[in-house]
Amino acid sequence: MKIAIFGFGTVGSGVYDVINMNSALIEKRAGKPIEIKYVLDLRDFPGNPVEKVLVHDVEIILNDPEVKIIAEVMGGINPAYDFTKRALSLGKSVCTSNKELVAAHGAELIELAKKNNCDYYFEASVGGGIPIIRSLCDSLVGDDIVEIKGIVNGTTNYILTRMGEDGLDFDVALKEAQENGYAERNPAADIEGTDAQRKAAILASLAAGHQVDCDDIPTEGICNITAEDIACAKGLGAKIKLLASIRRDDEKVSAMVAPFLVFENCQLYHVNNVFNGILVTGNATGEVLFYGRGAGKLPTAGAVAGDIIEAAKYYGLPSDIIWSREKAKMAEQGSISGRFYVRISENEAMEARKILGVNAESSTGKEGEIAFITEAMSEKEFLEKTKNLHILTRICVYD
Amino acid sequence: MKIAIFGFGTVGSGVYDVINMNSALIEKRAGKPIEIKYVLDLRDFPGNPVEKVLVHDVEIILNDPEVKIIAEVMGGINPAYDFTKRALSLGKSVCTSNKELVAAHGAELIELAKKNNCDYYFEASVGGGIPIIRSLCDSLVGDDIVEIKGIVNGTTNYILTRMGEDGLDFDVALKEAQENGYAERNPAADIEGTDAQRKAAILASLAAGHQVDCDDIPTEGICNITAEDIACAKGLGAKIKLLASIRRDDEKVSAMVAPFLVFENCQLYHVNNVFNGILVTGNATGEVLFYGRGAGKLPTAGAVAGDIIEAAKYYGLPSDIIWSREKAKMAEQGSISGRFYVRISENEAMEARKILGVNAESSTGKEGEIAFITEAMSEKEFLEKTKNLHILTRICVYD
Repeated sequence: MKIAIFGFGTVGSGVYDVINMNSALIEKRAGKPIEIKYVLDLRDFPGNPVEKVLVHDVEIILNDPEVKIIAEVMGGINPAYDFTKRALSLGKSVCTSNKELVAAHGAELIELAKKNNCDYYFEASVGGGIPIIRSLCDSLVGDDIVEIKGIVNGTTNYILTRMGEDGLDFDVALKEAQENGYAERNPAADIEGTDAQRKAAILASLAAGHQVDCDDIPTEGICNITAEDIACAKGLGAKIKLLASIRRDDEKVSAMVAPFLVFENCQLYHVNNVFNGILVTGNATGEVLFYGRGAGKLPTAGAVAGDIIEAAKYYGLPSDIIWSREKAKMAEQGSISGRFYVRISENEAMEARKILGVNAESSTGKEGEIAFITEAMSEKEFLEKTKNLHILTRICVYD
Repeated sequence: MKIAIFGFGTVGSGVYDVINMNSALIEKRAGKPIEIKYVLDLRDFPGNPVEKVLVHDVEIILNDPEVKIIAEVMGGINPAYDFTKRALSLGKSVCTSNKELVAAHGAELIELAKKNNCDYYFEASVGGGIPIIRSLCDSLVGDDIVEIKGIVNGTTNYILTRMGEDGLDFDVALKEAQENGYAERNPAADIEGTDAQRKAAILASLAAGHQVDCDDIPTEGICNITAEDIACAKGLGAKIKLLASIRRDDEKVSAMVAPFLVFENCQLYHVNNVFNGILVTGNATGEVLFYGRGAGKLPTAGAVAGDIIEAAKYYGLPSDIIWSREKAKMAEQGSISGRFYVRISENEAMEARKILGVNAESSTGKEGEIAFITEAMSEKEFLEKTKNLHILTRICVYD
């Protein structure tokens, strides 16, 4: 079985390494040897063994009928979208780590693959090496998935962990993450929640079986979380985590990405540093947590390699991922009830306590400010009630 | 697609409930409706809707060519082994929660299924509702599995949690577990580690691709763990957990079931009460944790239902679980190096400290006794060194 890798960046070179490192067992598991015939990249890599298979022109690969499987690990919509459509149209299965493309066009590409008797796999698009996609599609299939709550971005989890453990300010923690290679030089997609939003769209679509667009997912990053909030949360026995939160009630889906206060009785409290954790609740199985490295060269490459083996094993017998292009019915935004953490100046504290109710109060806070947890209410109610108050921070509480 | 359920006990009635409760989505996911045509049980269930499909004679089911899939949830080797062989020989796929049978005859039954173009699935045999089997077989296939460490028995984890949280004695915690329905009236298989040993045999066989027998797995239960040990462990910052521990080095497998001291930096530290947690390490993906309810009616039934859907979807296209009947090469027992927790009388403490080295000392202990953690050594070395000492408790340390 001949394959090609589109993109020789971090993940692409990882896929190249894993396929070579584990070639004997991969052959055994796929039932046939898997050989990398081409690697597509615009760059040259002088002296790198990849040179022997490196090509700059996608046409060579698309026109080679020997190539049956493509690992698309370029990232971004263009030209990956076009390349993927052309490959699938030619009956070549595609395995990807490209969450942006999967979130935007997953349903269409799955449909196109099915039409052409091949597969579109995307295990590596959420949770890196954590087998969350296949578990949702093949293992927890006896279950109606009622909730998914996950820490799906390692960069922000690292920043929040460092802020929580050593009281660092956001800017300092971000800088440290960049120095350690956990955050990009332009960290916007991570810290503003866009990366988590894409993963939430994929998970929500799979849970619902219907398309959930990124635009349907209200998203808030972690840029406004202060060292005071982290300290107040600690005083309340909680940590602040950026969560992708998906719920299904009465065939309606609600999804959001936002910082949450998470307490110690929740497994996600113990998911720290760059690790990801995804808590799936099924109506039969109950809560299942998947935990591991959500990013990084080898974990992500391992997931792509797993997809390549499945694609090779079942070549010509396409799998049946249920994700229709029809839009999922979304619940009205802000309608879900929950408690809120609020930080507010002492002047307004009495008024805020009266209006919102106090469920728990933090002992830690800045001079002249107080922080507390409200009674449960919907976001709509909260906004209505607090329209005359100057709330410094408001964070959802994971309940 | 017509199916039959063998056994209408806790899990069997759960499978019956889940298939009925989630019938619409199961039909969608399997690509065809799934109908329970028979339930086999020797007992009668007057007034229960199951009566309409209840039969006492297995021949009726085996001789009915309409029945393509069987859920074997009877437990025990006999007559489940015979029934399963006959069903598979007739080309009927079998989905089971029967860990005893899978551990003893899994390889043979997989081979028999393959020969008859059907499947033998056993997701529910380890970790209840946690999708660990399919993750090992289908998702982490790009990885060489180098280690599996798991809390795979909920009963003992509940007992150890209660001893740890409230200082209960073993007997009191066991009695409480029985009163809450978490332990059988005869708890031997759980507390002596036999149940965990079976699950370890299944996981080790799948990791190696070769048969690992229960007899190859030295097994120690939790009956000898005292309240003092738990307190000393706490003093050292650790909890005591019963682990199935599997390692692969140089194509050799070592497996054991024993209590371990687990520290807070390990995710298994946070797996408490009746929950299970299984930490898998692959050479590409790194550590992945699977966490959830390892037992109970609906979680286990959910896993069986998931298998039934897969069996229906891929009927006639048998999957390819790699588990050969050829025995795995086992590492010499006691050859792995690690630290040990020891509790010993004060009279022998100085001598023990000198012989074993002291890595950490517990501040908590009974009058006249001390507890400490040794330097790393193999079990063989440990036994050799301590043959003239009266060690009260020795527990492996998870490193």
